[in-house]
Amino acid sequence: MSFFRNKKILITGGLGFIGSNLAIRLVEKGAQVTIVDALISEYGGNKFNINPVKNKVRIEIVDVRDSNKMDKLVRRKDVIFNLAGTLSHIDSMTDPMTDLEINCKAQLSLLESVRNYNSKAKIVFAGTRNQYGKAQYLPVDENHPQEPTDINGINNIAAEKYHLMYFRVYGIKAVSLRMTNTYGPRHQMKHSRQGILNWFIRLILDGRTVQLFGTGKQIRDVNYVDDVVEALLLVAAADRGWGEAYNLGGTAVSLLDFVKRVIKINGKGKVKTIPFPIERKTIEIGDYIASCEKIKKTYGWKPKVDLNVGIAKTIEYYRHFKEHYWYTEKTDEK
Amino acid sequence: MSFFRNKKILITGGLGFIGSNLAIRLVEKGAQVTIVDALISEYGGNKFNINPVKNKVRIEIVDVRDSNKMDKLVRRKDVIFNLAGTLSHIDSMTDPMTDLEINCKAQLSLLESVRNYNSKAKIVFAGTRNQYGKAQYLPVDENHPQEPTDINGINNIAAEKYHLMYFRVYGIKAVSLRMTNTYGPRHQMKHSRQGILNWFIRLILDGRTVQLFGTGKQIRDVNYVDDVVEALLLVAAADRGWGEAYNLGGTAVSLLDFVKRVIKINGKGKVKTIPFPIERKTIEIGDYIASCEKIKKTYGWKPKVDLNVGIAKTIEYYRHFKEHYWYTEKTDEK
Repeated sequence: MSFFRNKKILITGGLGFIGSNLAIRLVEKGAQVTIVDALISEYGGNKFNINPVKNKVRIEIVDVRDSNKMDKLVRRKDVIFNLAGTLSHIDSMTDPMTDLEINCKAQLSLLESVRNYNSKAKIVFAGTRNQYGKAQYLPVDENHPQEPTDINGINNIAAEKYHLMYFRVYGIKAVSLRMTNTYGPRHQMKHSRQGILNWFIRLILDGRTVQLFGTGKQIRDVNYVDDVVEALLLVAAADRGWGEAYNLGGTAVSLLDFVKRVIKINGKGKVKTIPFPIERKTIEIGDYIASCEKIKKTYGWKPKVDLNVGIAKTIEYYRHFKEHYWYTEKTDEK
Repeated sequence: MSFFRNKKILITGGLGFIGSNLAIRLVEKGAQVTIVDALISEYGGNKFNINPVKNKVRIEIVDVRDSNKMDKLVRRKDVIFNLAGTLSHIDSMTDPMTDLEINCKAQLSLLESVRNYNSKAKIVFAGTRNQYGKAQYLPVDENHPQEPTDINGINNIAAEKYHLMYFRVYGIKAVSLRMTNTYGPRHQMKHSRQGILNWFIRLILDGRTVQLFGTGKQIRDVNYVDDVVEALLLVAAADRGWGEAYNLGGTAVSLLDFVKRVIKINGKGKVKTIPFPIERKTIEIGDYIASCEKIKKTYGWKPKVDLNVGIAKTIEYYRHFKEHYWYTEKTDEK
């Protein structure tokens, strides 16, 4: 993968969870990285995330919705990793318009910037398993119907479809990776609304009891963040497979099993199950297992990080750097 | 169908092509009709469209994006026919943000109004065959992949998905009819960007030559507007089938065949074929034939109006009321 040496890279949402882990890897590979992040309160952006490479990347505190600035930032880039966006079920239902702005309008605006000012760039978009809604069969492949249980899922469908259509109509090399529950270092730890796995880890580290709805046996297909970064790099370095969406995933585990592993690796902790609240029942997606055959066949990707190893690394990271993620009590979810 | 007697009905886009034909039928059936239309220049709205019932309906010149006004207008309605929106391929590609505003943001805003202020109402949404893009098999059923060749198609997918999700999550009785090329009286005749069939009729009535791309043998599945109105009424009067999308269609005909019929019924006219312009090639969808089995099984709908009868009625209408549709030369497409 010497592909990235001296390549000019733009990462939207680059101070966030996946973006910052990606930025660090790209710097290691000799790439010239520009990070765009709006650092919107409650979202995933955190300047500390890129501490190891802070003098080796360019940081632009810009909202992706600001098309004038994006028109300039997309120029002369070889690859654009488009990771800006929200992934909150609850926020999208209580404030649909903001979700629409960030997940549809900003994406479309970015694609227009690329089409007008840098149509040779490759774009890798972060889709989500949330696009599928409740699984109608397992494992879920890329042709599974897309019937989300929230507005966020629908807006992500639209954003992905814009990308793939810009390939079909304009020839822009866009691809989407539909990410599943990802955990690991550099995820925000202020609230539970953007990813439940890291939130469980926080609760255990805080000595609080994890409460799982129902039996706790609902299956999620989880990825350690390094495996996701590897997929992003593989896809961007390849010169094929554009205009398509690919599932990530590969490690199916129940929520209860995941939490039990966290407790075991941490040395202590508590978990209990409670009945589903009524308002969660209609949106519960049941079990989710991804088929990752398509990305395996096309790009040779498969996840490598063992679940226990990933959890241990995550716990270790937050034990060291807790003060940069826990913040004050005010920002905590009660 | 005495269902509609004294029912309170809201029609968004009610001064437009399908909305106005629907409003007239509903008044005949004894319904209390409120029309919402923004009368945006270049769109389909035209006050003359509802001339036969102008003293029997309430007209609100309101943009569906104005959520404060819509919050009030949705109250105490039994049925909402949600027909506001654009259907222009070209406009959506040259001005993606306006298409997003009207086809995503306004739809989501309307659904929020309904959820907050009238969650018992039924909502019938106008989807489009444009959601499918190029047909991968024929006839196209509702499970066909949705890979549009333009932004308008994608935004309509999102708008439809919002509606169906509001049924799944909130229990709001929403349904989508995916309309195909519809022709008939009350379609705007100022330009060709919102429906090609009526535009052909205008060209023939003006004595101009119709130019078809390629062989002219591309198949479209066409509906006369009365059949579409019938489908809207059937679905709204029923008490089942919510949360689903249904294809309309049922009369497959080549563009050349359609134009030849127009010429024959008109008594004169010219048509010729010309090579595809390069920029049209990538977005050409090829043949389209809809499977209408689902709506037939669920609601018993099938189109009844013979193609020649529909064309004759359309020609007759515009011969009578030309001055209300042709406008000045300035608004004509050259």
